[in-house]
Amino acid sequence: MKKINVGLLGFGTVGTGVAKILINNKDILHARLGVDLNLKYIADIDTKTDRGIQLEPGILINDAARVIDDPEIDIIVEMIGGQGAAKEFILKAIDKGKHVVTANKALLASQGAEIVKAADKKGVELGYEASVGGCMPIIKSVRESLAGNKINSMTGILNGTCNYILSKITDDGSSFEDALAQAQAKGFAEADPTLDIEGFDTAHKLAVLNALAYGMEINLNDIYIEGISKITPLDIAFAWEFGYKVKLLAIGKYNGNSVEARVHPTMISLDNPLSNVNGSLNAVTISADATGDMMLYGHGAGMMPTGSAVVGDIADIARNIVSGSKNRIPILSYKPDAVKKIPVMPVDEIFTNYYFRFAAADRPGVLSKIAGILGKFNISISSVHQKGREIQGSVPIVMLTHTAKEADVKKALEEIQNLDVVTDKPVLIRIEE
Amino acid sequence: MKKINVGLLGFGTVGTGVAKILINNKDILHARLGVDLNLKYIADIDTKTDRGIQLEPGILINDAARVIDDPEIDIIVEMIGGQGAAKEFILKAIDKGKHVVTANKALLASQGAEIVKAADKKGVELGYEASVGGCMPIIKSVRESLAGNKINSMTGILNGTCNYILSKITDDGSSFEDALAQAQAKGFAEADPTLDIEGFDTAHKLAVLNALAYGMEINLNDIYIEGISKITPLDIAFAWEFGYKVKLLAIGKYNGNSVEARVHPTMISLDNPLSNVNGSLNAVTISADATGDMMLYGHGAGMMPTGSAVVGDIADIARNIVSGSKNRIPILSYKPDAVKKIPVMPVDEIFTNYYFRFAAADRPGVLSKIAGILGKFNISISSVHQKGREIQGSVPIVMLTHTAKEADVKKALEEIQNLDVVTDKPVLIRIEE
Repeated sequence: MKKINVGLLGFGTVGTGVAKILINNKDILHARLGVDLNLKYIADIDTKTDRGIQLEPGILINDAARVIDDPEIDIIVEMIGGQGAAKEFILKAIDKGKHVVTANKALLASQGAEIVKAADKKGVELGYEASVGGCMPIIKSVRESLAGNKINSMTGILNGTCNYILSKITDDGSSFEDALAQAQAKGFAEADPTLDIEGFDTAHKLAVLNALAYGMEINLNDIYIEGISKITPLDIAFAWEFGYKVKLLAIGKYNGNSVEARVHPTMISLDNPLSNVNGSLNAVTISADATGDMMLYGHGAGMMPTGSAVVGDIADIARNIVSGSKNRIPILSYKPDAVKKIPVMPVDEIFTNYYFRFAAADRPGVLSKIAGILGKFNISISSVHQKGREIQGSVPIVMLTHTAKEADVKKALEEIQNLDVVTDKPVLIRIEE
Repeated sequence: MKKINVGLLGFGTVGTGVAKILINNKDILHARLGVDLNLKYIADIDTKTDRGIQLEPGILINDAARVIDDPEIDIIVEMIGGQGAAKEFILKAIDKGKHVVTANKALLASQGAEIVKAADKKGVELGYEASVGGCMPIIKSVRESLAGNKINSMTGILNGTCNYILSKITDDGSSFEDALAQAQAKGFAEADPTLDIEGFDTAHKLAVLNALAYGMEINLNDIYIEGISKITPLDIAFAWEFGYKVKLLAIGKYNGNSVEARVHPTMISLDNPLSNVNGSLNAVTISADATGDMMLYGHGAGMMPTGSAVVGDIADIARNIVSGSKNRIPILSYKPDAVKKIPVMPVDEIFTNYYFRFAAADRPGVLSKIAGILGKFNISISSVHQKGREIQGSVPIVMLTHTAKEADVKKALEEIQNLDVVTDKPVLIRIEE
């Protein structure tokens, strides 16, 4: 049997992981696939830095075009990131009839439609397991294992940086800023952490998952996104007293007509298995009509876990090549002609439970004024805690609600904020029951 | 595109789940596969009982041979169970060139080699995702997603009946007998629960997983098996005081030379995610060189979750048929010529931590005698609790050990049991750190 030639573009963290696995685990891959995966080229502008891996001479080059143009290469692995050169190289590789593997969620979420269309037209595979949840087989599970299911909802902790920071605040009472600094010191957060902490990275992943699960076009623009930078140790401590932890969740739900697609800090009960997912770990719960609730849990990022997912995709494609299989699985899980435009529900239309914290003057009648406004907007309170801790001349009043409509909540909070006894902008955190 | 015809043998619980999914989710399956999965026949000796599903006339028949012999049928789904007719029908179907899907772990664990060989020889697929872990995609993850990994260990809660019973004892302090009776009343346990509670069902699943993960022949006979019927509320309460829960675990570890393969009640720390897997739920942790630790969690049994896994296999095979793919993935994960005879380590050779409970006369010097014997056998104690609760004239002495060798432990316990101050057989529960 001929060998399968792989060309790697980008020799950064994940690229190095991919190379390590292909080289160090060559034998076990052969034992499973019955064919050699040969890493023929790695292209990177930096050909000098020692990545702690022994390469045969001539493998590491600085010319991506030479890799893409090489007629012997079957699979191009794009590990460059970003939406410039990465996209150009992917489209070129597809045009040359090569299969492509990528971990580039930002690119898929914003320009995936174009790339998928090109791959479909050319009849090549596009593997992207590594784009969501690192080593967790979430893409494969949704596209393959759950083929017989109607998927109802997915709830995921999909960003290790945010989960590390929230875990730090929860465990140590650190401020957000201190927790972020620690995440950066440990290499869990980028120097510019915006993409992670403001929820954009999580939203990229949710856009991909929603398309796969519900058979909709990839839709990043309509996802409601709220990051974790405003989360305080105080709210996390209150959450704990109510039996909740705060996690940045990606929530994708389908009611048969529209999809809820939102990313925001969320309180979840301590008996929800996601509440035990700590540090930089990731997890996704999928709820489907036949399986009921199912969860995948593991390392959502990092050199080797993400490299594992990339190599899983390479193995899948190699198996297709060897077994003579063409277009075995639709790239986005549903056959292109079955993909629908499913509308995303505006966040104002969602119904959920809420945690509010109001900063109010410590005077009689305040609670009744706030409760009165909530009642006017059909927001029913399930519990109230008025604690004695005075913060800058006001006391925190904390409330949990029964299910309420987001639009009503917004109106009520605006009116409450305008009360002269309320001294600061109310804090709102959604609760997922 | 032609339709794929499916013949179902066995219309019991899981068979009914499969039929429900194929019929009720026909459209979504078509949208994903681009081909219709047509349930042409269901064969069962009972054609009368109402299974709550509307079948077209002529589908439900009482003649399995007619299904297997039908040249139009592409995939035979064996949902009969047991090792008699099920095996005969599977081999006949293979002989007729049909692909087979089964959930029959008992058959695979004891006679899988013969069946796999027959399928390989004939070039047909054998799907068995449903044989381990219900809806959890454990087989697919090991065979496909982890293709690039050296798997080091797997630790699983793989029997819902046992996990339900242990959770009941933990939560309510029920006796084993009461918890079992409740499990039977709720339909989580069979009238004859031996296969489940004595660990055999879990061992069947471990035998399959070990073969897949480590590239070894299926080996059920060498698995060490200990069930949960001797677990008492007292030991579970002590475990809790030490920060442990007791779970029936399947443990498969590979050190490169031999495999540890054992099923026994095990104490695991409360920060191990498996400790939060309660009730009839299942979970497996896989530890591999690239992924690190990863966990799958979900319903390990039941009509619809197990049906979902069966339909996932049917979908995979249908995709192979449609895409012209032959023998894409080796049935047991490794190419037949790469499968090795890896020896199973005798349980006496394992090293682990232990919990002991001794029933001893409440006299001075007892602890020193016991500790002396443990010391003689190189068993180092990490903590001792001697509690005042007198039970039938003796007090329990509870000890946790550092890592010790099982053979040494056995010798020490035998000697301790022969002390005249020791009034009952010592209790041993292994601890997995």
